[in-house]
Amino acid sequence: MNQNTQEFFFGPSHRKVEIGDFITLCKNSEITLTSGAKISNFPVAYKTFGKLNEHKTNAILVCHALTGDQYLLGEHPVTGKPGWWEEYVGPDKPIDTNKFCVIVPNVLGGCMGSYGPKNINPKTNKPYNLDFPVITISDMVKVQHILIEALGIKKLASVMGGSMGGMQVLEWISKYPENVNSSIVMAASAKHSAQNIAFNEIGRQAVMADPDWCGGNYIAEGKYPSKGLSIARMMAHITYLSEAGLQRKFGRKLQNKSELSYGFDADFQVESYLRHQGMSFVERFDPNSYLYITRAMDYFDLAEDFGGSLALAFERTKCPVCVVSFTSDWLFTTEDSKQVVRALSASSSDVSFVEIVSDKGHDSFLLPDESLAKTISGFLSKLEL
Amino acid sequence: MNQNTQEFFFGPSHRKVEIGDFITLCKNSEITLTSGAKISNFPVAYKTFGKLNEHKTNAILVCHALTGDQYLLGEHPVTGKPGWWEEYVGPDKPIDTNKFCVIVPNVLGGCMGSYGPKNINPKTNKPYNLDFPVITISDMVKVQHILIEALGIKKLASVMGGSMGGMQVLEWISKYPENVNSSIVMAASAKHSAQNIAFNEIGRQAVMADPDWCGGNYIAEGKYPSKGLSIARMMAHITYLSEAGLQRKFGRKLQNKSELSYGFDADFQVESYLRHQGMSFVERFDPNSYLYITRAMDYFDLAEDFGGSLALAFERTKCPVCVVSFTSDWLFTTEDSKQVVRALSASSSDVSFVEIVSDKGHDSFLLPDESLAKTISGFLSKLEL
Repeated sequence: MNQNTQEFFFGPSHRKVEIGDFITLCKNSEITLTSGAKISNFPVAYKTFGKLNEHKTNAILVCHALTGDQYLLGEHPVTGKPGWWEEYVGPDKPIDTNKFCVIVPNVLGGCMGSYGPKNINPKTNKPYNLDFPVITISDMVKVQHILIEALGIKKLASVMGGSMGGMQVLEWISKYPENVNSSIVMAASAKHSAQNIAFNEIGRQAVMADPDWCGGNYIAEGKYPSKGLSIARMMAHITYLSEAGLQRKFGRKLQNKSELSYGFDADFQVESYLRHQGMSFVERFDPNSYLYITRAMDYFDLAEDFGGSLALAFERTKCPVCVVSFTSDWLFTTEDSKQVVRALSASSSDVSFVEIVSDKGHDSFLLPDESLAKTISGFLSKLEL
Repeated sequence: MNQNTQEFFFGPSHRKVEIGDFITLCKNSEITLTSGAKISNFPVAYKTFGKLNEHKTNAILVCHALTGDQYLLGEHPVTGKPGWWEEYVGPDKPIDTNKFCVIVPNVLGGCMGSYGPKNINPKTNKPYNLDFPVITISDMVKVQHILIEALGIKKLASVMGGSMGGMQVLEWISKYPENVNSSIVMAASAKHSAQNIAFNEIGRQAVMADPDWCGGNYIAEGKYPSKGLSIARMMAHITYLSEAGLQRKFGRKLQNKSELSYGFDADFQVESYLRHQGMSFVERFDPNSYLYITRAMDYFDLAEDFGGSLALAFERTKCPVCVVSFTSDWLFTTEDSKQVVRALSASSSDVSFVEIVSDKGHDSFLLPDESLAKTISGFLSKLEL
């Protein structure tokens, strides 16, 4: 099914990296995005782990978070680091690739091979940049639905994801219930809160304030908004951790020194940790993709399409839904998850809810956690393929 | 006692604004800052409200927060807006200026007339900029102590402040207990947490990443890091509010439109609110002062000077201390206040603690709140002058 490889520019040095396989969708058709823009003949990059069975009933779609991608397992082609969910996926892992075929597409608007602002606009022969249409979570899922159809899968054994991935799961079970057999929603919300919109907005402002952003045309200009993107990432990174976790990990510990420097270099470990997070992010993520994907999150409000009723959004949902929250997650709180649970209950869905005690904040779903592992494996063990 | 007026540059247009009265301290002496740097012959700007009585026993020192200043009441010379604590200070207000003489100095390192990076370095005849020494909360209070001595006040009726102002109050009752008759500490902490250091660090990075910061020499270069300072302020502003408050005030309301724009302009009210906050801050605050004062907050750890024991820090404290926290303040939490209360109790101090229910977050101490008004007036009513 995969046809080709793509090359993309990455990081301040504009090095070209081979992204791997992709499929071209809507070759002879087009789809209309939420904004009204139409797209056709576009690539979606994805990876699969495990084998699809004969009747194609064992596929699990994993939806990635804001800065995730299809490299859930194995070496990342840009960073060389292991996959982002090695802890939970693989042979004999909670999501057992001996049993399931895990499919992970890069989201629409992403920078790892799926159709996004870095793709070449055939009209200008240059990257789309800000001419790329603004996308929504609904658009991302629409494209995933077309991908699943193209792969010949009628019903997914499960759809799961955390954070923005969880938003996509909610969209799946609301809009395409007939194609989903079960679902796991982790550390997510049915709508982005004012505080989360605010954080995203400042991240975008930081990127766009960098003169090297060049109105989005940094590739053509041979520049790169490293500082702006790094600041956006540093700020977002704080929101992914918890106050208690930061305190436990860093507290007021100094970085390779025994005394304060009385200057503006990084004195505290937490400062140099964040600077490192910012700098390494810049090497692997596209600044314009960051704008588009954060915007998609801000726009997400599932109930909005159903007259403001989240219960109505789940009226057609019949599959089991497992909702997971983490006690120290202040970006997508337990209360956010409970709103989803209440709406699913009101729509007579089969919903279970697990609040996991953790001081690791929003990032908990990416980190080793025995309770999460047991929740996922227990939930999947009940599935009949 | 006041001698003169000063003029300072403000904002992107570098307009000159008259700051008002100041006093020159340490004319024939010098003081050593925490960093080891020595300063002498430096200005401290301050304002007083109410009359000092004959025996100078009715003075209340109010310590301002990070971006506050001496304009607690009355029109601000830069913004033209009312003072930042009009709600609580004035004739017949909780801090009654018929009874008390309220003294408010601009902190060392500030940009409203006190000695700071905008002052002229006599060696170069140019602003100090980054040649200004790095300062601490302890240094700010040391200067205030000299000011109070210069005003002939032996014992302050009270010292009070919120946020960074509260840090200064803690420093006062620890280091100069013989000069303090009572104190109120609001929305503060005895040390800056890893999360708070992290937010400050990103704010500084945003300022310094702006090419118009010019390594701190923007005044001489005729430039101004508006974008960087604005981003720093927008981010900090989120931390001053609560998630619930933001949700109540803005939620997902759109700004002057009925539909999403599918672009990167401000669609949501919370976005345009933050942009406005960022832009108006740029007009009134000095970017280098922002670096120095946030650094002073990061460095604050009162127990550190006492072998890590906060109780030891308060060993000489004998005056009544009223500690106030706000339920929705996540920057300086109730738990932070309780640590102060526990240490004061352990050192046999006369401490009272009030946790006020509010959804207005850290900024609560600046906003109208009946409980806070009653707490302050009740506490002050017990004072014998």
